[in-house]
Amino acid sequence: MALWGGRFEQGVAEVTQEFGASLPVDKALYRQDIAGSKAHAAMLAAQGIISHEDERAIREGLEGIEADIDAGTFVFDINDEDIHMAVESELTRRIGEAGGRLHTGRSRNDQVATDTRLAAKALARDLMQANLGLRRALLVEADKAGATVLPGMTHLQHAQPVLLSHHLLAYVWMFTRDFGRLRSAFDASDASPLGAAALAGTTYPLDRRMTAETLGFSSVIDNSLDAVSDRDFLLDLEYACAVMAVHLSRLSEEIVLWSSQEFGFITLSDSYSTGSSIMPQKKNPDFAELIRGKTGRVVGDLTQLLVTLKGLPLAYNKDMQEDKEGALDAAHTLMQCLSVMTGMVSTWTVHADRMRAVMHRGHLAATDVADYLAKRGMPFREAHAVVGHLVLEAEKRGCDISELPFEAFQEASELFRRDITGALDIDAIVAARTTEGGTAPSAVADQFKRAQARYLVDESSMALLSPVVEMGHGA
Amino acid sequence: MALWGGRFEQGVAEVTQEFGASLPVDKALYRQDIAGSKAHAAMLAAQGIISHEDERAIREGLEGIEADIDAGTFVFDINDEDIHMAVESELTRRIGEAGGRLHTGRSRNDQVATDTRLAAKALARDLMQANLGLRRALLVEADKAGATVLPGMTHLQHAQPVLLSHHLLAYVWMFTRDFGRLRSAFDASDASPLGAAALAGTTYPLDRRMTAETLGFSSVIDNSLDAVSDRDFLLDLEYACAVMAVHLSRLSEEIVLWSSQEFGFITLSDSYSTGSSIMPQKKNPDFAELIRGKTGRVVGDLTQLLVTLKGLPLAYNKDMQEDKEGALDAAHTLMQCLSVMTGMVSTWTVHADRMRAVMHRGHLAATDVADYLAKRGMPFREAHAVVGHLVLEAEKRGCDISELPFEAFQEASELFRRDITGALDIDAIVAARTTEGGTAPSAVADQFKRAQARYLVDESSMALLSPVVEMGHGA
Amino acid sequence: MALWGGRFEQGVAEVTQEFGASLPVDKALYRQDIAGSKAHAAMLAAQGIISHEDERAIREGLEGIEADIDAGTFVFDINDEDIHMAVESELTRRIGEAGGRLHTGRSRNDQVATDTRLAAKALARDLMQANLGLRRALLVEADKAGATVLPGMTHLQHAQPVLLSHHLLAYVWMFTRDFGRLRSAFDASDASPLGAAALAGTTYPLDRRMTAETLGFSSVIDNSLDAVSDRDFLLDLEYACAVMAVHLSRLSEEIVLWSSQEFGFITLSDSYSTGSSIMPQKKNPDFAELIRGKTGRVVGDLTQLLVTLKGLPLAYNKDMQEDKEGALDAAHTLMQCLSVMTGMVSTWTVHADRMRAVMHRGHLAATDVADYLAKRGMPFREAHAVVGHLVLEAEKRGCDISELPFEAFQEASELFRRDITGALDIDAIVAARTTEGGTAPSAVADQFKRAQARYLVDESSMALLSPVVEMGHGA
Amino acid sequence: MALWGGRFEQGVAEVTQEFGASLPVDKALYRQDIAGSKAHAAMLAAQGIISHEDERAIREGLEGIEADIDAGTFVFDINDEDIHMAVESELTRRIGEAGGRLHTGRSRNDQVATDTRLAAKALARDLMQANLGLRRALLVEADKAGATVLPGMTHLQHAQPVLLSHHLLAYVWMFTRDFGRLRSAFDASDASPLGAAALAGTTYPLDRRMTAETLGFSSVIDNSLDAVSDRDFLLDLEYACAVMAVHLSRLSEEIVLWSSQEFGFITLSDSYSTGSSIMPQKKNPDFAELIRGKTGRVVGDLTQLLVTLKGLPLAYNKDMQEDKEGALDAAHTLMQCLSVMTGMVSTWTVHADRMRAVMHRGHLAATDVADYLAKRGMPFREAHAVVGHLVLEAEKRGCDISELPFEAFQEASELFRRDITGALDIDAIVAARTTEGGTAPSAVADQFKRAQARYLVDESSMALLSPVVEMGHGA
Repeated sequence: MALWGGRFEQGVAEVTQEFGASLPVDKALYRQDIAGSKAHAAMLAAQGIISHEDERAIREGLEGIEADIDAGTFVFDINDEDIHMAVESELTRRIGEAGGRLHTGRSRNDQVATDTRLAAKALARDLMQANLGLRRALLVEADKAGATVLPGMTHLQHAQPVLLSHHLLAYVWMFTRDFGRLRSAFDASDASPLGAAALAGTTYPLDRRMTAETLGFSSVIDNSLDAVSDRDFLLDLEYACAVMAVHLSRLSEEIVLWSSQEFGFITLSDSYSTGSSIMPQKKNPDFAELIRGKTGRVVGDLTQLLVTLKGLPLAYNKDMQEDKEGALDAAHTLMQCLSVMTGMVSTWTVHADRMRAVMHRGHLAATDVADYLAKRGMPFREAHAVVGHLVLEAEKRGCDISELPFEAFQEASELFRRDITGALDIDAIVAARTTEGGTAPSAVADQFKRAQARYLVDESSMALLSPVVEMGHGA
Repeated sequence: MALWGGRFEQGVAEVTQEFGASLPVDKALYRQDIAGSKAHAAMLAAQGIISHEDERAIREGLEGIEADIDAGTFVFDINDEDIHMAVESELTRRIGEAGGRLHTGRSRNDQVATDTRLAAKALARDLMQANLGLRRALLVEADKAGATVLPGMTHLQHAQPVLLSHHLLAYVWMFTRDFGRLRSAFDASDASPLGAAALAGTTYPLDRRMTAETLGFSSVIDNSLDAVSDRDFLLDLEYACAVMAVHLSRLSEEIVLWSSQEFGFITLSDSYSTGSSIMPQKKNPDFAELIRGKTGRVVGDLTQLLVTLKGLPLAYNKDMQEDKEGALDAAHTLMQCLSVMTGMVSTWTVHADRMRAVMHRGHLAATDVADYLAKRGMPFREAHAVVGHLVLEAEKRGCDISELPFEAFQEASELFRRDITGALDIDAIVAARTTEGGTAPSAVADQFKRAQARYLVDESSMALLSPVVEMGHGA
Repeated sequence: MALWGGRFEQGVAEVTQEFGASLPVDKALYRQDIAGSKAHAAMLAAQGIISHEDERAIREGLEGIEADIDAGTFVFDINDEDIHMAVESELTRRIGEAGGRLHTGRSRNDQVATDTRLAAKALARDLMQANLGLRRALLVEADKAGATVLPGMTHLQHAQPVLLSHHLLAYVWMFTRDFGRLRSAFDASDASPLGAAALAGTTYPLDRRMTAETLGFSSVIDNSLDAVSDRDFLLDLEYACAVMAVHLSRLSEEIVLWSSQEFGFITLSDSYSTGSSIMPQKKNPDFAELIRGKTGRVVGDLTQLLVTLKGLPLAYNKDMQEDKEGALDAAHTLMQCLSVMTGMVSTWTVHADRMRAVMHRGHLAATDVADYLAKRGMPFREAHAVVGHLVLEAEKRGCDISELPFEAFQEASELFRRDITGALDIDAIVAARTTEGGTAPSAVADQFKRAQARYLVDESSMALLSPVVEMGHGA
Repeated sequence: MALWGGRFEQGVAEVTQEFGASLPVDKALYRQDIAGSKAHAAMLAAQGIISHEDERAIREGLEGIEADIDAGTFVFDINDEDIHMAVESELTRRIGEAGGRLHTGRSRNDQVATDTRLAAKALARDLMQANLGLRRALLVEADKAGATVLPGMTHLQHAQPVLLSHHLLAYVWMFTRDFGRLRSAFDASDASPLGAAALAGTTYPLDRRMTAETLGFSSVIDNSLDAVSDRDFLLDLEYACAVMAVHLSRLSEEIVLWSSQEFGFITLSDSYSTGSSIMPQKKNPDFAELIRGKTGRVVGDLTQLLVTLKGLPLAYNKDMQEDKEGALDAAHTLMQCLSVMTGMVSTWTVHADRMRAVMHRGHLAATDVADYLAKRGMPFREAHAVVGHLVLEAEKRGCDISELPFEAFQEASELFRRDITGALDIDAIVAARTTEGGTAPSAVADQFKRAQARYLVDESSMALLSPVVEMGHGA
């Protein structure tokens, strides 16, 4: 079906048919497209622009098409270029002339913006739900971790002992911030472009607020040029995905490290590991690696859209057809990653004994020994140097600083007393960090409550989101 | 000054001195560093961890150093590696042993996070101010544009006539959204990491809320590991800059187009143009091109940080030292771009006559002619085809559709009456698009009020931001 | 079929099945996979590792499978995870135990590297061919352009007149460089990893040179760890595509500009344009815009792989499974873009009259007037200033510098004589630029010959490429 | 000094002065700029366009300026906008009117392209030299490693034992490929744009081959438009840097892992480590982390230029002024990274005993046990399953597969004989992988010779490079 026949004397070259078609990508938005058309038709009828008979025919025709796509029985034709034309040309086949009136006061430019915003809302909402799922799983793991201690690291070197729950809560906070970014993306999508028509508005007496309300949009976009040319909401969604992917890559890196023979801190469930086709002993943290690797994909998606939008004059340009694939890919990728990560952390086995066993390797008590001296009056910089020499001494003896004889301490500074043993005990070291946000059990318990409260607030907020049109899975 | 002397037997290799040093970049944060140290010292004294005499010596010493850097008389030494050490080692030179007590209960890890967050707040605040400046300038231009009409374009082809004010307001809305992103970046930065120490909190009875309040932070970060390893706030800042840069690139592209010989829609002020070293006639829109070109830089900055953070285990890793340069660059670039763009649009000359003169080139009335038929009962798709043929006819005659004789219309469809001239008049076409967000003067007047109101709300919100430590310019 | 059953007590979680599977992407490499397996089996038989009967069964089984996939009758099962397992498990179903011997002395790690390299060779080769196609089309257009002159621009401002053929040849040279990058990518792919096994080589007496030769590889990779972990060749391919996409985006931008109402330099064929669903007059350069927009996609693909590979330890990591989708996407995108661009430039209509008509708009003669003075002894910087004032004078009179009366010249400098008209004539200006690479017809004719010769050399070089395994289209 | 005074009635706005100036960046190219001007002047004189007196004055003036900049006594003025104007205006101050004749037949467009290409050649050459340095260091380490064995890994899990020298050689091959990319970037830069003038060539009888030869360029660029608008050579340089950065990030990741308490495979020299301001025991692999982190920067630089160039029409646009900073940054970053990495690997201490001690942790013999069964007639897939069960058995007993009693083997399959111990011995396993590129000492020795030969070829090739103008360090 030639969409713009009149002024053209030749058809489109064959080579461009597949090139120009967005159908393989945008058919995923069939429910959004049909919802948008139904809302538009209802408004046209309410405004007296089309008849109620036409409206009913359109609505029933569209519902029949949706049912067919849902059921997987709809046959898409690449010649229809995009989902809008695929639906509309089938509609006209089914209901005749009334189908031709659906497009009154509408252009593909505002139609595609509407569909895309509806999809972005649904994707952001689904990602918020999945984000909550991972946070819940991590909170459960943090709770189960109890008094388990592991060597806190900086530069991948043993630094100071920390509670495993404290470590896991650090990730909870990252994902809590991600929830906020997803919410921003949801809100950015939550305004209706419908009625902007091609770029300038229309001469028909449309009721833009009515279609916005029917579709669940919280507001209408204020400027028709902006309505058809704005893709910020997709950037916001892809950006939220990119940061979340970076956070997941950090957790994945730790899972890969922790499940290595060298660390041995955790064992992944068989259900979240794979083997090798040639090496029978292998149990690989494939899924953590894949999540880490997929960071590239999501950063690439964000880069793509930024590059594509750069330097485009107003209003709509065809370049913008390249907007949906990356956004769908980023959202789909993150849905999978969140889901797999949730399963992986929920089923891992933590080796608390192993974590404790390695505590003697990195002189984890050194800071507290320096603090010990500082609290007895030595300037910290000087105490740091004294303890540095003790560490060097321990290294030479092949032991941990906590394993040095008292004499070695005495030799290093006469401020040392027998009570230095208190500064060498891992649990005491952990328990001493009681300042807000510190790793002491008491401080972590407080922190846990705050993280949990934030979880509950965010979870409750889901019920207050404006309505979304669910993504279909039939196309 | 060796910062970690004790356990090291050899010094750092010369080749690594410059490589490892962040001083050339982070010296820009000297005021933030000094403010952070003063707040920390005041709290240490209030908590009885250091004496009030020491606190006074530290404070006065730091203020002296700040004054020297402000005045440009402070000599930085690359051997001091970073701004923290540059300040602290000078402080100890000036006030002796008390200087060594400043670092009690603090680590470079929480110190650098504090400085960076303070800087990010200041940069975000400055960018919000500059963003308001550009929006104000565009609102003024939109207001001045009055009834000026230009050919609205899609695909850079004449589409439908629009008011210039409508066109400019589309950009106002883009930059309004950018303000929101900058505010998110401000808020993301607005929490204090101080007290997290190296990664686990500290054994000193610090009062984290006191230092947070002194420094103007609205809250303290809940988790010490997160406090030293989170750089989301910089990503948020860079992302806000990247999207704003894309918006500026679109406006720049239009300025380049509009000031070309072919368009001739505007003339840039001599103050915002440059010439050629060889071609005496040239008046180039260099600054618009540079703004457009700098999009690459800001997208590159965002990419850089995403790549750098990917796959880092907790907590602090040295990779993260690469965080500040890109953020400072992105913010600095945008400050310049916003400022130059504000000047450029405020001083351009708009050629309303030329904009109107080209109105007969692109059959801008075609949509309204089709609507004319549709409103008289012809299905829109059919009307579209009829008008397409009229356009083809006009093309063949070498005229605009509005210049066709009435007979040509009659021949195309008998629905055409003499009143078709109403659908061919540019001003009537514009005036007919009265739906919300449309380009009719009445609709644009409403829209202008909303954009102005949003401007005023955002401007007022500046007074409610939490305090910032201003960026210094002496380093 | 569980690939690594022995040490696993539970199966993979359902949620990870789709996540971990690469089959939807790598099934595109079925011919490469089957060719690799046939070569491996033939070598195993030649080395006496498997029997000749087994080899024949394997070969015939694989050929049957290939025929079925080619015909589109093969049913892929997502449980088979990847193309390697899909083929191998079907093979075993078809030929029994012999199928189990195929994998002797091979691992999925070297198998996947082999398949990917074979595909990269085929894609690079196809892109080289398409690159030649576009260069040929541009050479034809350059040849057809004859003496057509257009205003050469810098900063999108009229600068100096140039031959259209000269302008088009600039693109020919860009694409000539791209051919070199594609060739580098081909060569980078052209070495066999087969025999590296999982990472360390194997204990079987494989003949790596035999499989390399059978598969058309020019050499074998020297290090088994490198063989399974190197993806440089995909980066090289994606980089070649990214630069070529940037070049295409520049040509596309010019096509969009040139086909605008304001420029009017060309008209695109109806076959390479589209219309609007609402605006009957529109004829949009959609395909040029799409090509320009797809730059983002290819830059995104390159970014993705760079991010994914960053920081991976040796040897194979699952992150690397994310290598193929972007490379296939980049190559496929460029194939389409090259093909569409070739058709678009071959069918456009050039409006030489319009190009000439705008020659009086931008004072294109100004440089030559300054040169006129300089050649008569005035320092160039001074001549530049004199002509600048003449331009200003012309602007004020609303005319081009070439339209100023002789008196105006005389007033500006007494060096001007009546022969200044020679410096004001467009054709004379063009003809005067005879230095190598200049726009004079004689210089352009020489240049054309060189560009054509390079085309012929590159075209001939195709016959000397090592053999490739063609991409299949059945999966 | 106003460069284009004539047609401008007002000066440039102050805010744009810093914004438009490229001097802070391009002053790094002062030697290239001066060399270019000297070559141009010499050619102008040889062609009789300027007098020999003028040429001598220009030459001596330029040499004086260069000496002053070299000595650090030259005062740059931001009002001079760029290095070209800074040098030329000073030249005119020094030698008077002759200075004004230097620019005859030249434009800033071809001048800046010339300077940038000369700089790119010098940077590529320096990077090739540094690349050779790292390869030499790695070859020395590989040689020193002798029979040292470490657990080869995939997925960071123990896979099969490999020689340390084999592992290090994998990196040598990566960097060998990088040398090729740098060479391509060198060659891409190695053509002279001088004589292209603004965009169209010039009316002066320039001898482009003479200036090319004087400056050490191997050829002249064929098309004047391409000469001023091509920046592919910078993309090539940045791309070569980006891939090399990814390679360095992989080696850095391994250094971070290997120097962790958990791995303990190496100890870095004190000269290539740093400590902590608060934790006295810390010895951090800071420089490896920084190198890894700087990958982001270089990928960001490449992204920047690709974005900036996207969609620019011919010929020169001001956006392109953004070309140099990223290229200089990428090259400078890589120079540092290569140099630091060379020092780091040359001074590390390898703990061969520790590498061997962990050999019993990951069932490294499992593949060979499966091969043992396969060679005795069991299909490999079945053998894989048998050994998988043995591994599970060993895991349950808390031992390595090599530590299982013979009875366990017998129970698993009756094909096992006493000689299975041969398949369990680490050195025997390594020695058995004798195929080309495998990890057997004999195969590695062959490989080492090839890597060394490639090193020598590449090193020798340096002498055959076309001459470069060295980067100055005075600006």
